[in-house]
Amino acid sequence: MINGKTINEIKIGDRASFEKTISESDVYLFAGITGDFNPAHINQRYAEKTMFKGRIVHGILVSGLISACMAANLPGPGGIYLSQQLKFTAPVHMGDTIKAEVEVIEISIEKNRAKLRTFCTNQNGDMVIDGEALVMPRK
Amino acid sequence: MINGKTINEIKIGDRASFEKTISESDVYLFAGITGDFNPAHINQRYAEKTMFKGRIVHGILVSGLISACMAANLPGPGGIYLSQQLKFTAPVHMGDTIKAEVEVIEISIEKNRAKLRTFCTNQNGDMVIDGEALVMPRK
Amino acid sequence: MINGKTINEIKIGDRASFEKTISESDVYLFAGITGDFNPAHINQRYAEKTMFKGRIVHGILVSGLISACMAANLPGPGGIYLSQQLKFTAPVHMGDTIKAEVEVIEISIEKNRAKLRTFCTNQNGDMVIDGEALVMPRK
Amino acid sequence: MINGKTINEIKIGDRASFEKTISESDVYLFAGITGDFNPAHINQRYAEKTMFKGRIVHGILVSGLISACMAANLPGPGGIYLSQQLKFTAPVHMGDTIKAEVEVIEISIEKNRAKLRTFCTNQNGDMVIDGEALVMPRK
Repeated sequence: MINGKTINEIKIGDRASFEKTISESDVYLFAGITGDFNPAHINQRYAEKTMFKGRIVHGILVSGLISACMAANLPGPGGIYLSQQLKFTAPVHMGDTIKAEVEVIEISIEKNRAKLRTFCTNQNGDMVIDGEALVMPRK
Repeated sequence: MINGKTINEIKIGDRASFEKTISESDVYLFAGITGDFNPAHINQRYAEKTMFKGRIVHGILVSGLISACMAANLPGPGGIYLSQQLKFTAPVHMGDTIKAEVEVIEISIEKNRAKLRTFCTNQNGDMVIDGEALVMPRK
Repeated sequence: MINGKTINEIKIGDRASFEKTISESDVYLFAGITGDFNPAHINQRYAEKTMFKGRIVHGILVSGLISACMAANLPGPGGIYLSQQLKFTAPVHMGDTIKAEVEVIEISIEKNRAKLRTFCTNQNGDMVIDGEALVMPRK
Repeated sequence: MINGKTINEIKIGDRASFEKTISESDVYLFAGITGDFNPAHINQRYAEKTMFKGRIVHGILVSGLISACMAANLPGPGGIYLSQQLKFTAPVHMGDTIKAEVEVIEISIEKNRAKLRTFCTNQNGDMVIDGEALVMPRK
């Protein structure tokens, strides 16, 4: 029931997604967990004067939705997260609804590894994160 | 006061670090923010049967300490986080004290970009995350 | 000081209430505690297309206000919560101010049990939860 | 992708489960969300003198795992939660790993309703909550 897929149950082109509206409280709790108190995230007066015109969401917080998507679905429980590349391609604002998507692009059955393209888009379809992950599905 | 360094104030070899003990509540809140309820993180019974012998911390949560370190010190406020590569090289357990370190390894004054080596070690000196980040310091 | 009422200090018709405005952060934290990431609660884009026209509050979260009311007042500390019936009769939106009310409707001194009608209304007087609880007051 | 099952995709005997270790931080956040500051949950000195020999988890918090299980799996997104009966049959302690299970026991296709038996057990197999829920799957 809480077992994810093995490498033999995964094929190139498999996809999964997870979507969530990011709240101010998400950003504030994340700041508290990580210690990332960049004023761009938690100082409204400062942030209004930046090119982003307001507080933005931590890029690493948004990346967590990719991790959630892999954890739940592809490859699911038992998989080991080996690496992640992230390009932060556009700012995420509080209240944005972010869709994390993952798609299998390479499989090595001998090494028990799958490479996934991993990206996040906002409610307007703008890419906000792009990248790749390497995972080792459960045996 | 809340202004970070410009590219002219940064040189190769500059370093900064940030250290925090990761608590169970950090892990539980991070699960709640991201939706990542992988049983490896929040199910003790399941986790005891894995190769890690207990619940482990989300890799992306630990990565947040790197982000915190760059946000506060190098390059500091006003910098824009362009990309991050992460290799998860060893598990992090609840209660581990993690030190995130960043070191400038390349500078492009024309492009206003700095490349940093970014890594995290635990209280035993084991590397748990290794990678690189690209940032655009404030103008 | 922190002792609740005994069965002899309770009579049919006794009432208590507790009122709170439910915030977005309440809903987000509750999702994180329970793992209930139903998009109706945490995905604004999805929720706008539902019959509720926006994100709604978890019914079980709202039920917690009934539990709070009994814990503090009727029967108060030392009581044991035996059972709860809940009908979710209308949606609760973020920002709604919910009043939980309990009223004693049956008492069994021999069995040391009190039955309470338990219900919640919003700021417009709409019933959002209706039901009954059975409690064992402290001895 | 985020659509749950319709009544025609559900049959008697269908089951789903969700399991989580309940932390102290879960209990403390739940107290903060609901206002249920019963000393049995948040006062260690008081709780040690009770029959439970320590702080216990709010029954309604544990019920949230049932809601999470229905929200994710059975019937899944789009379903409407109509009612829930709960019997709190044994205490839950911080650190317990609780498995919420739901099983379809009645279906009415005309009314678009499914009745589920809903129960939670701890790591020792003890039943801690028993009850039933009525849901209206998405159309």
